[in-house]
Amino acid sequence: MVELYDDERLDYLLGEELKIIQSPSVFSFSLDAVLLSKFTHVPIRKGKLIDLCTGNGVIPLFLSTRTNGEIMGIEIQERLYEMATRSVAFNKLEERVSLLHGDIKDMPRILGRHQFDVVTCNPPYFESLPTSEKNPNEHYAIARHEIKCNLEDVVRVSSQLVKQGGKVSLVHRPERLLDIVMYMREYGIEPKRIQLVYPKQGKEANILLIEGIRDGKKGLKILPPFIVYRDDDTYTAEMNELIYGK
Amino acid sequence: MVELYDDERLDYLLGEELKIIQSPSVFSFSLDAVLLSKFTHVPIRKGKLIDLCTGNGVIPLFLSTRTNGEIMGIEIQERLYEMATRSVAFNKLEERVSLLHGDIKDMPRILGRHQFDVVTCNPPYFESLPTSEKNPNEHYAIARHEIKCNLEDVVRVSSQLVKQGGKVSLVHRPERLLDIVMYMREYGIEPKRIQLVYPKQGKEANILLIEGIRDGKKGLKILPPFIVYRDDDTYTAEMNELIYGK
Repeated sequence: MVELYDDERLDYLLGEELKIIQSPSVFSFSLDAVLLSKFTHVPIRKGKLIDLCTGNGVIPLFLSTRTNGEIMGIEIQERLYEMATRSVAFNKLEERVSLLHGDIKDMPRILGRHQFDVVTCNPPYFESLPTSEKNPNEHYAIARHEIKCNLEDVVRVSSQLVKQGGKVSLVHRPERLLDIVMYMREYGIEPKRIQLVYPKQGKEANILLIEGIRDGKKGLKILPPFIVYRDDDTYTAEMNELIYGK
Repeated sequence: MVELYDDERLDYLLGEELKIIQSPSVFSFSLDAVLLSKFTHVPIRKGKLIDLCTGNGVIPLFLSTRTNGEIMGIEIQERLYEMATRSVAFNKLEERVSLLHGDIKDMPRILGRHQFDVVTCNPPYFESLPTSEKNPNEHYAIARHEIKCNLEDVVRVSSQLVKQGGKVSLVHRPERLLDIVMYMREYGIEPKRIQLVYPKQGKEANILLIEGIRDGKKGLKILPPFIVYRDDDTYTAEMNELIYGK
């Protein structure tokens, strides 16, 4: 049983047994979150994972299918935090997945430094614009624009939360690649794996996945290209595997 | 007429009318040089272009088919410089293509600063190893290992040679991506276009193409993936176009 408010729906998580509360007027998860959930390395049997800017909790829910560790999600918008909490309860995951309502910038003080094996984040992608140009829906505006936190905050906080040798995985737009790698190196995270997502063969990349290791050694790999659609507009094999499972 | 020494051969430049002198024991051009020659932006009608670490002159020869500007190639190994000079003469390109025998690090002093619209370079990829582990063939060792110049030298010299607003294009290994973008930004070249070359769908990238603009504005594009082989080991359409022309 779950209570649904306003225009909320209970959707299946793609390819999983789990369900998630979404709302077209408040927040729905994107392909980006799914890609990040499958891209990041996770410790399988135990460990502590934290997802920053967790929204409706999509990444913690996906991660719960890949690890038996403890997963925490941080969300600054109370409405989304509350949706995520109900989704976790509906899936009976309260023992392994917890949500915290607050600002990511306060988390190193609240949760302590260097406590997590993995930090993930699907942050707001767009720099903060003059108010007039923002998404008029405040929930989407905060999720998409750098209003409450910017890219440097995300990398700095990730670096403070992750253990030495732990992993930080982000999804972002390719045009921010240089800023991400500069901030990572500035804050002691060595970029180790990059994957580029192309909508179709012959098109520019539109999603960037990047994972770094706190105090890691140099050595970057660029993983195979992830292409979403074939030329005939059907999904590629890797996309089918991503959303329907093997 | 052309004189060929030792084991030299006169090969066709892939997909072009031009011929080039190569030698299996001294230097043969690679796919990397072809990719860079087609990747870089060039001014079509006029302008000054310079290719650093030019080897047997493969990049100047390819560029001569894309621009009517003046092209200069710099090579530190006299044997290769001399091969390149004979190839240019054989193709009757002396009026537009010139070679200079010397160290790239001396070129800003010899040629003057900020005189070129385009700088290209296919530099040595491998960090300099203890002598025992180097390629025992000295010609190949200098072409492949950072013996006479390293990545920072290449980026610094490129930055000194290129005009404000001019382009610097490099081909390298993907694992050096971070070093390249850090050096580019350090020396005032803003990375603008990246293309990753994957040997096959499902494989990690093995060649990186990157172009930056001297004092350029921020804004990076990641071009469509370039995949060399199809699953059945035949060339992809983009590879056929690259080596046989449209």
